[in-house]
Amino acid sequence: MNLDRQNQALQTLISSIQPADAAAMTSARERQSQLTKPARALGLLEDLSVRLAGIFGSDRPHPRGVAVIVAAGDHGVVAEGVSAYPPEVTPAMVAGFTASTPYGTGGAAVNVIARTVGAKVYVADVGVNAELPAHPALESVKVRMGTRNLRVESAMTAEETLQAILAGSEMAGRAIVEGADLLIPGEMGIGNTTAASAITARMLGASVESVTGRGTGVDDATLERKRQVISDALNRDASQVGDPLGVLADLGGLEIAFMLGVMLRAASERRAIVLDGFVEGSAALVGVALAPNLQDYLFPAGECAETGHAAQLAHLGLTPLFNLGLRLGEGTGGVLAAPMLLSAAATLREMQTFAEASVPDRE
Amino acid sequence: MNLDRQNQALQTLISSIQPADAAAMTSARERQSQLTKPARALGLLEDLSVRLAGIFGSDRPHPRGVAVIVAAGDHGVVAEGVSAYPPEVTPAMVAGFTASTPYGTGGAAVNVIARTVGAKVYVADVGVNAELPAHPALESVKVRMGTRNLRVESAMTAEETLQAILAGSEMAGRAIVEGADLLIPGEMGIGNTTAASAITARMLGASVESVTGRGTGVDDATLERKRQVISDALNRDASQVGDPLGVLADLGGLEIAFMLGVMLRAASERRAIVLDGFVEGSAALVGVALAPNLQDYLFPAGECAETGHAAQLAHLGLTPLFNLGLRLGEGTGGVLAAPMLLSAAATLREMQTFAEASVPDRE
Repeated sequence: MNLDRQNQALQTLISSIQPADAAAMTSARERQSQLTKPARALGLLEDLSVRLAGIFGSDRPHPRGVAVIVAAGDHGVVAEGVSAYPPEVTPAMVAGFTASTPYGTGGAAVNVIARTVGAKVYVADVGVNAELPAHPALESVKVRMGTRNLRVESAMTAEETLQAILAGSEMAGRAIVEGADLLIPGEMGIGNTTAASAITARMLGASVESVTGRGTGVDDATLERKRQVISDALNRDASQVGDPLGVLADLGGLEIAFMLGVMLRAASERRAIVLDGFVEGSAALVGVALAPNLQDYLFPAGECAETGHAAQLAHLGLTPLFNLGLRLGEGTGGVLAAPMLLSAAATLREMQTFAEASVPDRE
Repeated sequence: MNLDRQNQALQTLISSIQPADAAAMTSARERQSQLTKPARALGLLEDLSVRLAGIFGSDRPHPRGVAVIVAAGDHGVVAEGVSAYPPEVTPAMVAGFTASTPYGTGGAAVNVIARTVGAKVYVADVGVNAELPAHPALESVKVRMGTRNLRVESAMTAEETLQAILAGSEMAGRAIVEGADLLIPGEMGIGNTTAASAITARMLGASVESVTGRGTGVDDATLERKRQVISDALNRDASQVGDPLGVLADLGGLEIAFMLGVMLRAASERRAIVLDGFVEGSAALVGVALAPNLQDYLFPAGECAETGHAAQLAHLGLTPLFNLGLRLGEGTGGVLAAPMLLSAAATLREMQTFAEASVPDRE
């Protein structure tokens, strides 16, 4: 596809995202108040259930399948020494996501947690800097062998960015056809918290320090270098909040663009999106700037331990569901949140009302 | 059983609770450090996985079945006007737990959430103040038609207390035979936060104000009355922390005693216990006073919104896994926590190590 066709495809996607169904939400709120429990006794689950009603267009929402789509990409900026791990970890972890183990496909945390809660795992190579052997569990949609070094030049061209977004959209479309109602974008990419921090600083107008953390666990000297690299990138880059695609191309990553595509497609097909961690959050910041209605489809997972995640969630209006101190990525937190969201929908759908159960209401 | 035989049965149960397996925990900690993720990237899940290793005696713990056992009982203290709901709600809710619905057995929140996460629900009438029709999903172990009014007299006799504890033990034993590795005691009983607050104040030496909340949602005047009733009970009652069974009998409830029995039996058979809310917490305070090793088997759910829950968790050394503002009881929070605990165990059991996955470790 040429750039014009890509742009047109993206615009079509964006314009197809409708706001949540306000009538279903009103009806859901009324129904919640009649269920056999004291008012507000289910706390935040009640709010989640109402939002899910808005997405699925029913006061008895019934989301079924859960899919985590893990996108992998490398980052030219690792040349600056911003990570605690060598870039060879990215292809090795992708191999781990698709490895045969005695327990099933995949031996990484996301595989294991997904097996436990019944989520399906999709893995996409959108920009790993290595030739990966073909594998039935690995979707190859490689745009490039990693991004360019965002400290000194734009990480991606406009065309590469769009290609990655549309690849994410396509994969989300496939997951939906295969039954996904909750979609969890996840990521793997050594160096990608550097890109995510740069995007977050730009999109929120926040200081580099306030949105840059230790990623996989860098030491003080590396953290200092990482912050300097991000500052250099922001000084080099003239992209503006008003041009979110420009920000994404200049400062982002291929897996970040892919995750944005997953989100836009999920929202356009009225599916709920569970937002895991900090890198996912950076894609969501670009997403709501492009398509404000996307916000209606975003659900929080936990608060991740990476600096800047809380600022992202506040901007997106999301209250985290838990705080386990996770900072792994891969979509792990999103998968852990899925049973809570399914449970929230189930209370609205399956609980009896006071009238149905002949339970006396409060005096 | 006479009182001597009951006492003997309880002492046997208590003395059979062994501490967690320290060698398995050491081995699990070592294994966690080798899994394909940055150190501590799974946060609190790592600690949970190590504790589960200690209970199941393996650095690859494999808890399978999840059971929530909901005990129902009424409280004589409702005569003092301490609840927002009439006592008729207790039998009506028990009927709701066992009702036939289009979705399966039970239309209450605990049924619905348990169906969503794959937990089995057991329901026991240990002291509902009504004759309940026989039902295959309802275990009748009724000790008494509700407790006495704890403001003016001891809620239960020693014999009634022991009978309820042993009934809980028996039911937990059955759930374990039927496959439960995670057991969640849950409760239903209008008035039971009054009993739980009285127990908590006594066991923690805390002020009534600091551990007495609004229960199902009482107004200011009722909250004031509830606090006065609890103060009267504590002034009347001479039971001491050093006699936890005495505290339980004087200030407790039949379903609280039953939940204590569930916990003691689960620990004696080396199963994990997920502690849901404030009423459950009051049973656990009595439990660890009777059997300090019980602490090794207790896992937190979320922080419930009832005043005093945080003080209980602090005393028990438990960090809550989430804060959804739940204050329903029934074991609902415990059921929501189950997928997190199963996931924690699964990471330890099924994740690949850096060596197995040929992933380069940090530089």
